[in-house]
Amino acid sequence: MINPDHDLFLRTCRGETVERPPIWVMRQAGRYLPEYREVRSSVDFVTLCRTPELAAKVTLQPIDRFGFDAAILFSDILVLAEPMGFEIAFNPGPQLDEPARDAARIDAIPDADPREALGYVYEAIKILRRELAGRAPLIGFTAAPFTLGAYLVEGGGSKNFDKVKGLFYSDPAAAHRLLEKITRATQTHLLAQVEAGAQAVQLFDSWAGLLGPDLYTEFSLRYVKRITKALRETGVPVIYFALNAAHLMDEVATCGADVVGVDWRTPLDRADVQLGGGFVLQGNLDPCVLFGPADEVRRQAGAVLDSGRGLKGHVFNLGHGILPKTPISAVEALVETVKAYKPA
Amino acid sequence: MINPDHDLFLRTCRGETVERPPIWVMRQAGRYLPEYREVRSSVDFVTLCRTPELAAKVTLQPIDRFGFDAAILFSDILVLAEPMGFEIAFNPGPQLDEPARDAARIDAIPDADPREALGYVYEAIKILRRELAGRAPLIGFTAAPFTLGAYLVEGGGSKNFDKVKGLFYSDPAAAHRLLEKITRATQTHLLAQVEAGAQAVQLFDSWAGLLGPDLYTEFSLRYVKRITKALRETGVPVIYFALNAAHLMDEVATCGADVVGVDWRTPLDRADVQLGGGFVLQGNLDPCVLFGPADEVRRQAGAVLDSGRGLKGHVFNLGHGILPKTPISAVEALVETVKAYKPA
Repeated sequence: MINPDHDLFLRTCRGETVERPPIWVMRQAGRYLPEYREVRSSVDFVTLCRTPELAAKVTLQPIDRFGFDAAILFSDILVLAEPMGFEIAFNPGPQLDEPARDAARIDAIPDADPREALGYVYEAIKILRRELAGRAPLIGFTAAPFTLGAYLVEGGGSKNFDKVKGLFYSDPAAAHRLLEKITRATQTHLLAQVEAGAQAVQLFDSWAGLLGPDLYTEFSLRYVKRITKALRETGVPVIYFALNAAHLMDEVATCGADVVGVDWRTPLDRADVQLGGGFVLQGNLDPCVLFGPADEVRRQAGAVLDSGRGLKGHVFNLGHGILPKTPISAVEALVETVKAYKPA
Repeated sequence: MINPDHDLFLRTCRGETVERPPIWVMRQAGRYLPEYREVRSSVDFVTLCRTPELAAKVTLQPIDRFGFDAAILFSDILVLAEPMGFEIAFNPGPQLDEPARDAARIDAIPDADPREALGYVYEAIKILRRELAGRAPLIGFTAAPFTLGAYLVEGGGSKNFDKVKGLFYSDPAAAHRLLEKITRATQTHLLAQVEAGAQAVQLFDSWAGLLGPDLYTEFSLRYVKRITKALRETGVPVIYFALNAAHLMDEVATCGADVVGVDWRTPLDRADVQLGGGFVLQGNLDPCVLFGPADEVRRQAGAVLDSGRGLKGHVFNLGHGILPKTPISAVEALVETVKAYKPA
């Protein structure tokens, strides 16, 4: 059955007038779903990412259960680390062998060809386009260059990201050579996702918020702009989500994406003003709201919907990934609320 | 010897015209100092906090070494947890027994009397006032109520603080009862520090940035305001430092403190505009700058000094605590730069 709203999400991304905001949620294929945990009970995270049939299967789970208006490929923002020569393990946070902490290590990174190494991602996308059969559009994604670079330098997550920021202050030229390599690989990876069938792509700049405006402009934004420009030629909408970036709104306004993701910290109408107006925004219910009673979920979701009314467009989402212990009933109340919303 | 600038810091906090910005740095008595590590090699963190002579000794170390313009008592934002009935261990992050996750546990928290239980803090202050002998004023501190509450509910640090935010959404009345108890204890603890001789106090709202403006206003700011109001009567300057609060500037502007701390994310001149102007600001060099070469330290410190020129007043500081691996030579270059600064 073709969903009559199957292109609601894409039309919203393009700034067209729509009946209601579409909804999907970050990490919608994840641990809060019993059917996902069931799959994970017999296969580890990395194998799941690398097995196209399984990645496609878990991608579809939240579409089948909740009828979200978009599917997002099950994958990881760190899959690109491997073609760049990094061994990576998840325990459960990512850990990389031989992080790129100095110029010599950075210059030893090979020029990656994701088209060969990441064939499993593009294969999962092809399977998904067939199996979704028009029920919902498919979003591809990857990390923004700075965010992937932060992992490659730190060797994993970090509290202060002092190693990557220390590199920016002590050897900015080497840092730029690293970001150049990452940007080329990232661009290829996104274009290959689009060629395989991704109908929109999201760039996750999860660590952008660690940077002040000067470092952000020099080491993140300039590379983001190159990618949004290259993607623009495909006609596929690009969503840019910089987490914790309330202090960077002047800069984010120039990112060149079609849609800007906003985390739960800033109400959408305030973010729109800070961005200078005229953006399609994605977000931004606090994921913790879903631990409250159903009435509170409806009330808070309503507040987010209302704060999105004056925008050029609003893609409803959480303001961060859904948390593993989120009750299913709360997600049901949320989807119901958004689908019933009638902008006055 | 009495430092001729001994009241530079206090005069700046009061908004008086001064020769140059005073400098101190958050966690200035800490692991980056070999003489601190020497003390810690024979005594654990908790014992150090609880032994007035030792707490005073490490408080003085950075004053003796660098000639900072203010001393800050060596203590911990969690010392108040104990008189409130929580057992606490550091491994090395704080871990609390029986966190306050529901109404029953919250209502079982006794009304704390820090004046009895935390005598060691006030004793350290008395020793310090004698030993500082006018070389530098002494800052006392504690956590803002929400930040202490976040630890009491989560039972330690947390990535998403979903338990405390879940409590706000599911049982706001119980959350307020918890924050009332904390606020009373916090106020008493700060007043006792002032009576013992603290010449300024800082409220650390380290987790404020996890909240959007509605939750922040309801569960943090209203209690902060009560405390700044109570402290105002003592005549001692109050510094309020909400970390990662760029999205909360409209609200922070009403906090009632004499000085507002700004983290490294937002240039001081931008923060001043966002706050509506007319504040004495404290901050905000990125602590990671201190991993760069001395020239870069001087350049970046100069940029912070310049961004602070148009303010009502500027207390130079880092934008977050100094990191344990910071080289001493970088701190020397920093102090030298600030002390040599001549506002045009």
